[in-house]
Amino acid sequence: MTMRTIPIAAASPDTGTAYGRPVPTYRKELTEVGAGTPMGELLRRYWHPVGLASDATGTPRKVRVLGEDLILFRDQAGRAGLLHPHCAHRGASLYYGKVEERGIRCCYHGWLFDVQGHCLEQPCEPGGGGHARERIRQPWYPVQELYGLIWAYMGPPDRKPVLSRYECLESLDAGEMLECNDRSIGGGGPQIIDCNWLQHYENLVDQFHVIVLHSTFSGTQFVDAMALMPQVTWETTELGVKAVSIREMPDGRIFRRVSQAAVPTLRVIPSPRVGKYGRVESLGWILPIDDHHFRIYVVGRVKAPGELAQMRSRQNGKLWEELTEEEHRQSPGDYEAMVSQGRIAHHSEEHLASSDRGVAMLRRYLRRQLEAMERGENPAGTDFDPDAAPVFFDAGNFLEDPPSAA
Amino acid sequence: MTMRTIPIAAASPDTGTAYGRPVPTYRKELTEVGAGTPMGELLRRYWHPVGLASDATGTPRKVRVLGEDLILFRDQAGRAGLLHPHCAHRGASLYYGKVEERGIRCCYHGWLFDVQGHCLEQPCEPGGGGHARERIRQPWYPVQELYGLIWAYMGPPDRKPVLSRYECLESLDAGEMLECNDRSIGGGGPQIIDCNWLQHYENLVDQFHVIVLHSTFSGTQFVDAMALMPQVTWETTELGVKAVSIREMPDGRIFRRVSQAAVPTLRVIPSPRVGKYGRVESLGWILPIDDHHFRIYVVGRVKAPGELAQMRSRQNGKLWEELTEEEHRQSPGDYEAMVSQGRIAHHSEEHLASSDRGVAMLRRYLRRQLEAMERGENPAGTDFDPDAAPVFFDAGNFLEDPPSAA
Amino acid sequence: MTMRTIPIAAASPDTGTAYGRPVPTYRKELTEVGAGTPMGELLRRYWHPVGLASDATGTPRKVRVLGEDLILFRDQAGRAGLLHPHCAHRGASLYYGKVEERGIRCCYHGWLFDVQGHCLEQPCEPGGGGHARERIRQPWYPVQELYGLIWAYMGPPDRKPVLSRYECLESLDAGEMLECNDRSIGGGGPQIIDCNWLQHYENLVDQFHVIVLHSTFSGTQFVDAMALMPQVTWETTELGVKAVSIREMPDGRIFRRVSQAAVPTLRVIPSPRVGKYGRVESLGWILPIDDHHFRIYVVGRVKAPGELAQMRSRQNGKLWEELTEEEHRQSPGDYEAMVSQGRIAHHSEEHLASSDRGVAMLRRYLRRQLEAMERGENPAGTDFDPDAAPVFFDAGNFLEDPPSAA
Repeated sequence: MTMRTIPIAAASPDTGTAYGRPVPTYRKELTEVGAGTPMGELLRRYWHPVGLASDATGTPRKVRVLGEDLILFRDQAGRAGLLHPHCAHRGASLYYGKVEERGIRCCYHGWLFDVQGHCLEQPCEPGGGGHARERIRQPWYPVQELYGLIWAYMGPPDRKPVLSRYECLESLDAGEMLECNDRSIGGGGPQIIDCNWLQHYENLVDQFHVIVLHSTFSGTQFVDAMALMPQVTWETTELGVKAVSIREMPDGRIFRRVSQAAVPTLRVIPSPRVGKYGRVESLGWILPIDDHHFRIYVVGRVKAPGELAQMRSRQNGKLWEELTEEEHRQSPGDYEAMVSQGRIAHHSEEHLASSDRGVAMLRRYLRRQLEAMERGENPAGTDFDPDAAPVFFDAGNFLEDPPSAA
Repeated sequence: MTMRTIPIAAASPDTGTAYGRPVPTYRKELTEVGAGTPMGELLRRYWHPVGLASDATGTPRKVRVLGEDLILFRDQAGRAGLLHPHCAHRGASLYYGKVEERGIRCCYHGWLFDVQGHCLEQPCEPGGGGHARERIRQPWYPVQELYGLIWAYMGPPDRKPVLSRYECLESLDAGEMLECNDRSIGGGGPQIIDCNWLQHYENLVDQFHVIVLHSTFSGTQFVDAMALMPQVTWETTELGVKAVSIREMPDGRIFRRVSQAAVPTLRVIPSPRVGKYGRVESLGWILPIDDHHFRIYVVGRVKAPGELAQMRSRQNGKLWEELTEEEHRQSPGDYEAMVSQGRIAHHSEEHLASSDRGVAMLRRYLRRQLEAMERGENPAGTDFDPDAAPVFFDAGNFLEDPPSAA
Repeated sequence: MTMRTIPIAAASPDTGTAYGRPVPTYRKELTEVGAGTPMGELLRRYWHPVGLASDATGTPRKVRVLGEDLILFRDQAGRAGLLHPHCAHRGASLYYGKVEERGIRCCYHGWLFDVQGHCLEQPCEPGGGGHARERIRQPWYPVQELYGLIWAYMGPPDRKPVLSRYECLESLDAGEMLECNDRSIGGGGPQIIDCNWLQHYENLVDQFHVIVLHSTFSGTQFVDAMALMPQVTWETTELGVKAVSIREMPDGRIFRRVSQAAVPTLRVIPSPRVGKYGRVESLGWILPIDDHHFRIYVVGRVKAPGELAQMRSRQNGKLWEELTEEEHRQSPGDYEAMVSQGRIAHHSEEHLASSDRGVAMLRRYLRRQLEAMERGENPAGTDFDPDAAPVFFDAGNFLEDPPSAA
């Protein structure tokens, strides 16, 4: 038996095994969204949708944005408010508050706050609190309403930009109306998606996954034309990264598809179902809930109410939540691809290839915005002119004649 | 488009927003209860109820007290025992032990321990273990039974005080009997309340929340008289902080209500339902289960069995666990106010006002007890004289004639 | 009242209470199994079963071994593969991959990997990826199939031993066949057991718990003979620790039972139900899933299919998962004893006695293997000779005549 313990090394050892693999890491500066983090501060330089306009009511509602828990409500004068949940007095949550004409009243001792956090009443204090009351401020964030959404600015007050308007939502064709949706259309999964927001943002400039994940892999999730291998070019624009996919159609015509990932979290993605050709019909905003969750708000031009909801992904006619685990495994979509990268994708283990050039460009673009912010500049797309023109994107699905053979 | 990226600061920036809010903190020395922490050590200088007398039976029971997991049982000779769960031998839990005449036997190798942790048998050892066995001690805590409760002392053995008796539970009126209850009466919620114990302890000297939370906010949870705005005075006593609330009744008489928060965790609160006037009819002990959970044991004088259980809060006739989330939100009580302050309230974000003077006094009182302990003194209310008189509190609901107009 | 606060020390303080008990600790070097830990590296010098052969199919399967998440599959050419779950490209999980003739294809962009992690296709790259593709390697581990199980080697490639064979599984008696089982037979509980693997490994050389836990405590879980108090001797062998239990039977004959805990995690335990006397009929491998979970794979010689599954513990005819919490408490088995020691047993609080000599010897044996590994030696039981004889254990249940009275 002695022979069996003599140390002998394997003659031609295996290569490339998982043994000794370094502990994976991720790019914290591009992914983490909490207050005080680089990306958290960059994102806080923009307005973000935090709910449907109809979410702000007389019933206080819990919302979570960029890692912060907040209370959304609408006072009886119609003003939407977004307040820190813990009452400035002794910390009971305004979730249990009562909404009144002038604001929201804490359940514990009745302090009343308006939508800007001013303390209007302290019913248990002698004289109603007097000067001491006037110095109290419930932490709050400014909100605005546009396109059926509530928008919040959670950044440094002296850097608050104007709320952007968008040409594709301002200029409606005959018979069109705006509709908004909070079901995370484009995420391919449930309303709250349990991975880092960047995984989805990068997915926007990843044109090639369409022909694998959405076509050959899970059947044709979109339309036949999308399954054709495209020629893709990416370019960095002022507001992000734009992708142009050129597909030669069976009839010789050219299908030109233009998409964009724009600051801060904007999906400028023409419908992959290509119902009709033309300019992009909807915009989506990825809302980072915290480092490990996001959701998507979408606003679009439709012909009839409910049209936007039809854009949610279906597989064999079923919505994501109606599929079994086995069906998810057999027919994965964006949700399965993104979430299976991990709560935050392990960037140290990636091997980007030429088809990932859009992803690489988007990361560089974000890093440049971080650097601009660190230099004291305002990041791209923050506008301080109330009369600024709406933002225009040249995105869409376009069917064009082939270049003449001349 | 160039113009749009020129840095421009907002003209009159918002004030008081939540941006840049410091990370909240809490007073660890007043809240945390684990072994070796300041408050944990202070609390360990007193006896605490750890179960109903009927909880100690031949079936071992898991209890959790001050962050420690323990096993409560009663041997067949009638002695209650409170032991560290992991057998001194190899660590199997005594939860799976068998209770015998002389103690509890571990399931794994049969070591038998008495209620003081002495190892009486080691059946797998030659000679039953001999002298080595005699040196083994299962970690234990001394217990006593009083008022229908099991009391444990978990502090330094040489500082063990006598178990206090209380006048209001010793001196019964004609037709009265004692009853005890473990349903966390006074907590306004479930049996186990998921926030720090101090939030409830402070609630005891917060006389003003009664007229907001329990009256105007959620309808009249108690009785009409309690909804009247009181005149409140607080004073520090030897054993804690006492609050006197004076209400002028519609008929001109004076309703004087006297409550107290006493060491270590004592609720000296006359019934807020004011069934009859007179001295306080029950005492409650807040048991800190760990930093984030507590429960309340109550002992009271009643006329008939089951009367104490009638004191549990109801809203529209329903017990807390019978209400929907929407009903909790619409009619919050002590539970919602306390628990929504956070697992441990963020003291750094509070703004105490004049109506919180009792809270401030109670914190100072606790800090003085911590300081006394650090100086080597015994904290207030620890008594070492077996013949000490029962503790007397002058608490109650008293209806009095108005002072003469002379 | 002043008298009551005078510091007075208790006259004869309690001894042995749980107050001041040190924070418990455990032996990290013997328990933790992650990559880079001492025991994790020692265990990685051996082959471990990671699934039934039938677990490797065209449907990718998640497995977790030694704290690592992996994907097990079988390509259409019949080769089993064990790969790091996150695709080397952008990290989507191969759990959503499609198995093909030559390997598994990632759902996101279609990279195809063989069972050794070579990247065979990159369909979205110009020219299929070219030389860059050839440098890509999906982290993988070598696997082999034997005795109906898939075995993996997760250690340093140049230390990969041959996969051991075992005499008791190679040499079958007339009418016998091999059967394997993944239900954690011997663990006394569910398929995945939620405590550290060492707690079970030590249980193998703990001969005395049989007469308490399995006999007097929970009724006779095995057979009457096992309830007799044995004479036990332990010895360290080349491959672990061997225990010999001698029981004098009512008819005067000697029941000699020989068991062994062997490297790396081997259960060499004759049936405690003692269906028939003779050499050990099965072997079990404890698979550490991570620091807090393990499972057991068993291979045995049987007369008929399904015989092995009959070896699962039953209490009153019920399997573990069919018993109520109350029944578990009344009739604890190995699972309850082991898991109640804690996720990882608190070694600092143990008091090993003479009946624990096997446990102490096994720990010393493991420490010596750790030391050998640190010196650069190969640990015991790692064999590099493809023609090595099968490993032989002299374990079994033997019924023998008493020594002659001469």
